[in-house]
Amino acid sequence: MAIQVAVCGPRDCTEAERDTAYELGRLLADRGAVVICGGYGGVMAAVAAGARSADGVVVGILSGADRRGANPDLSIIIPTGLGSARNAVIAGSGDAVIAVGCSWGTLSEIAFAARRGDVPVVLIGGWRLLDDAGEPVPGLSHAGTPREALDVTGLWP
Amino acid sequence: MAIQVAVCGPRDCTEAERDTAYELGRLLADRGAVVICGGYGGVMAAVAAGARSADGVVVGILSGADRRGANPDLSIIIPTGLGSARNAVIAGSGDAVIAVGCSWGTLSEIAFAARRGDVPVVLIGGWRLLDDAGEPVPGLSHAGTPREALDVTGLWP
Amino acid sequence: MAIQVAVCGPRDCTEAERDTAYELGRLLADRGAVVICGGYGGVMAAVAAGARSADGVVVGILSGADRRGANPDLSIIIPTGLGSARNAVIAGSGDAVIAVGCSWGTLSEIAFAARRGDVPVVLIGGWRLLDDAGEPVPGLSHAGTPREALDVTGLWP
Amino acid sequence: MAIQVAVCGPRDCTEAERDTAYELGRLLADRGAVVICGGYGGVMAAVAAGARSADGVVVGILSGADRRGANPDLSIIIPTGLGSARNAVIAGSGDAVIAVGCSWGTLSEIAFAARRGDVPVVLIGGWRLLDDAGEPVPGLSHAGTPREALDVTGLWP
Repeated sequence: MAIQVAVCGPRDCTEAERDTAYELGRLLADRGAVVICGGYGGVMAAVAAGARSADGVVVGILSGADRRGANPDLSIIIPTGLGSARNAVIAGSGDAVIAVGCSWGTLSEIAFAARRGDVPVVLIGGWRLLDDAGEPVPGLSHAGTPREALDVTGLWP
Repeated sequence: MAIQVAVCGPRDCTEAERDTAYELGRLLADRGAVVICGGYGGVMAAVAAGARSADGVVVGILSGADRRGANPDLSIIIPTGLGSARNAVIAGSGDAVIAVGCSWGTLSEIAFAARRGDVPVVLIGGWRLLDDAGEPVPGLSHAGTPREALDVTGLWP
Repeated sequence: MAIQVAVCGPRDCTEAERDTAYELGRLLADRGAVVICGGYGGVMAAVAAGARSADGVVVGILSGADRRGANPDLSIIIPTGLGSARNAVIAGSGDAVIAVGCSWGTLSEIAFAARRGDVPVVLIGGWRLLDDAGEPVPGLSHAGTPREALDVTGLWP
Repeated sequence: MAIQVAVCGPRDCTEAERDTAYELGRLLADRGAVVICGGYGGVMAAVAAGARSADGVVVGILSGADRRGANPDLSIIIPTGLGSARNAVIAGSGDAVIAVGCSWGTLSEIAFAARRGDVPVVLIGGWRLLDDAGEPVPGLSHAGTPREALDVTGLWP
């Protein structure tokens, strides 16, 4: 079975985040990983397009009950109809979870991924989380580039 | 994008249902369809094995939150952690939904699939549903063999 | 804690089913049971109205993510946003599950309830399920009236 | 219909968080609000106990498929079987969402609540969220005490 990497990120993203997500998708496909994403626009569309550009497999796990709004670069579409709760499914499906940028939806995925405790969770940009003492909350890794994010996962030693 | 067919059926199945599911998986893969199933044993394992024997792609949408109990022939694993509610996800993911045999879990998938109203729902064996007047409930198709089931879907005219 | 009874039934129901559901709600509230239902129209609205007429507590577990379309007789509203998958939540929440009439959505709830194996599942009217041998599928009880349905549950010996 | 307030917080909480949650539950019940919580231990148990001490109604929305592990102060139990995804249901069920302390699970609920955009989300203690520029992410309110949290919701003007 191929390595599966869930990639999260906002629908409303910056141009830089879009470029990062595209490059991330391309690299993941190059390494033979299946990309799992939310299947819509923004970071989700960019990572799918990047993976497809390298002939990769991309699974879109939609919040909606049908395929409306799905981006055109998905290999497999799972229209869950679960609404926000589908974010838990995305976060649970990766051997690693990588977030590009942040939003409330993305944060829920980061939280679910970190809660698992058994997979690397890597953030490229996005928000920062401080605990009561003002220290970074443990459990998250950070990377500046897609390539660095892949290194940080430890999945390709 | 490839045609996606969701295949449902009990974990505790007969030998005949297992054979039918295997043959169904093989035929679906031969025609280039992605098989979506529940990812565990019985009919789910047989359809996956059949599809894999023909180099097909099989997605297992698990009720559990991790990969424990997943059959060995899945190409992609989505551990939803949703429990029974994942049956709605399976039923919502096919361009057609085919059930081999029946059980309460399978019946929930048949019901969700029929509720969609926009995809063929084909039963090979299993239970029968009669309305108040003793007539078969409309919305379901029946087939005697995997090949006939594929014909009935109308997906390969 | 009060006894909880989940009541299922179609949104598009007959006048007779509506009357039955109202009476069922009234009886359940009289006996101090909390009614769990899908929170929308038809049987769901009638059972809520009946329970409220006897000062009962009714929980509406909505498929939608907000309160739109909820009937006016709910005491507590849980807008799950889960779509069809919320049917699994309803079926899992009762010490007994009673269906008035049938539809694909209702059938999914009956199937989930029967799958639990630990609670009585009682049908008033609706569809009939026959196994491969043409015999009624075991696991479901039948009742002609709301009062009989309550007796059949065995919750008030 | 009564006001509904969802209260989130970690199972493994401090003694101070437990006291805060108990007091919060008591105040909410005093004001006639229904408390929605996750139904297990820690903050969830404390808010339920507090509400019950003032004869309030508490709904426990469990991640498990049965009542195992539910705290003893729930009025109504909804065993969803949804695993982590049930956090989306809790966050969607309040006219306000209040978090006492934090954890990854709690953070997912805060994220889902903030994503709604239509209800106050109030944090008592817990983690801090900074955006890329190091500024607090907008959309969350903060309170030092249960009473202040209730004021901040604006539900009792």
